[in-house]
Amino acid sequence: MLTITTYDWVPEKPRGWVRDLRVRWACEEAGLPYRVDTVPLKPKSAAHLARQPFGQVPMLRDGNLSLFESGAIVMHLAEKSDVLMPADAAGRADTICWMFAALNSLEPAELYRQYVTMFDPVPEAQPHAEAALDDRLKPLEDAFADRQFAAAGRFTAADILLGDVLRASGAGGRLKGYPRLSDYVARMTARPAFAKAHADQLAHFAAATPPVGAPA
Amino acid sequence: MLTITTYDWVPEKPRGWVRDLRVRWACEEAGLPYRVDTVPLKPKSAAHLARQPFGQVPMLRDGNLSLFESGAIVMHLAEKSDVLMPADAAGRADTICWMFAALNSLEPAELYRQYVTMFDPVPEAQPHAEAALDDRLKPLEDAFADRQFAAAGRFTAADILLGDVLRASGAGGRLKGYPRLSDYVARMTARPAFAKAHADQLAHFAAATPPVGAPA
Repeated sequence: MLTITTYDWVPEKPRGWVRDLRVRWACEEAGLPYRVDTVPLKPKSAAHLARQPFGQVPMLRDGNLSLFESGAIVMHLAEKSDVLMPADAAGRADTICWMFAALNSLEPAELYRQYVTMFDPVPEAQPHAEAALDDRLKPLEDAFADRQFAAAGRFTAADILLGDVLRASGAGGRLKGYPRLSDYVARMTARPAFAKAHADQLAHFAAATPPVGAPA
Repeated sequence: MLTITTYDWVPEKPRGWVRDLRVRWACEEAGLPYRVDTVPLKPKSAAHLARQPFGQVPMLRDGNLSLFESGAIVMHLAEKSDVLMPADAAGRADTICWMFAALNSLEPAELYRQYVTMFDPVPEAQPHAEAALDDRLKPLEDAFADRQFAAAGRFTAADILLGDVLRASGAGGRLKGYPRLSDYVARMTARPAFAKAHADQLAHFAAATPPVGAPA
């Protein structure tokens, strides 16, 4: 049995965005059963930091294995199911390329935008961050002229990662002018496996007990 | 035979930092022979964009396979050699977790710093970017209290990615106050495979013909 670890509680704003979503989504697509347990958002426990050096979530237990980083966990799960990872060498290589492209070429630019608009706002940096993100979105929009999915001509684990990063750009209003990417996010988030993962994360946090004195 | 593709020429400043370094380093560690070919830095060719949607390097050819993204290529190479990837399930899982940690938890913060200090400077954002990077470096320094390598208690592909990202932080003067991480970068960059990869990249660009009118 797989166990996904997320936080015991988070405020309203990040609900629907905590990265256990990517792992839930992968499990739902692949039909892999899982349970969910939690660690405190704060303070971080020693047991949490021993499994996750940055004190983040998600984590995964798979038998004796403990994994962290949403990308690594999705990669690990992809090895269990050809729903997520094509079995042929070319499809597999393409999927792995696009998984890293989502997390290491696109997401740093999206996170630069989030850093300066949401996490620790710096108004002077916002036009620069938007330009940096456009430098990634423009060629990606071009790449989607002849594709419906990120890799291998079919749904793969790469769509979970690329879809989730682009979903964040879209929620920040940054996919205006990118009709193919907007359509891609709409198609990915319309998938039943995404919808279930998303609803389950919202229900998990809705049922959580806020810490004493926590803001909504 | 493996073929690594890098740029035909780059200015002085990025020499030693172009990401084909990670792929050369992996090949050198694993004893995998390779040749190097090039694409123009600019303008990007249609053939380049067909293989690499963002018009970046490195790319790899391995027989009929074409790969892009340094992380994906290092992952692909790691499957060929247990020098880079432990064969046991726990070591393999740990290596994959730390590969993604380097590229998706640490590098976005390092890139935020590079965006606002180097690529498109925004002085107002610099203290914020430094704080964001410290938020990653502090727990990483703690994690290195009991480890010499990123994953699995031995050198792995994760050290190529983590070592290269931290090398950039160090070159930016950001590892002051992080003695374990500084020592780690010193040990990783002292490895003969890194030294050869680095020297070979410098020699490649030193021998290149600058485009007409190019700045040094």
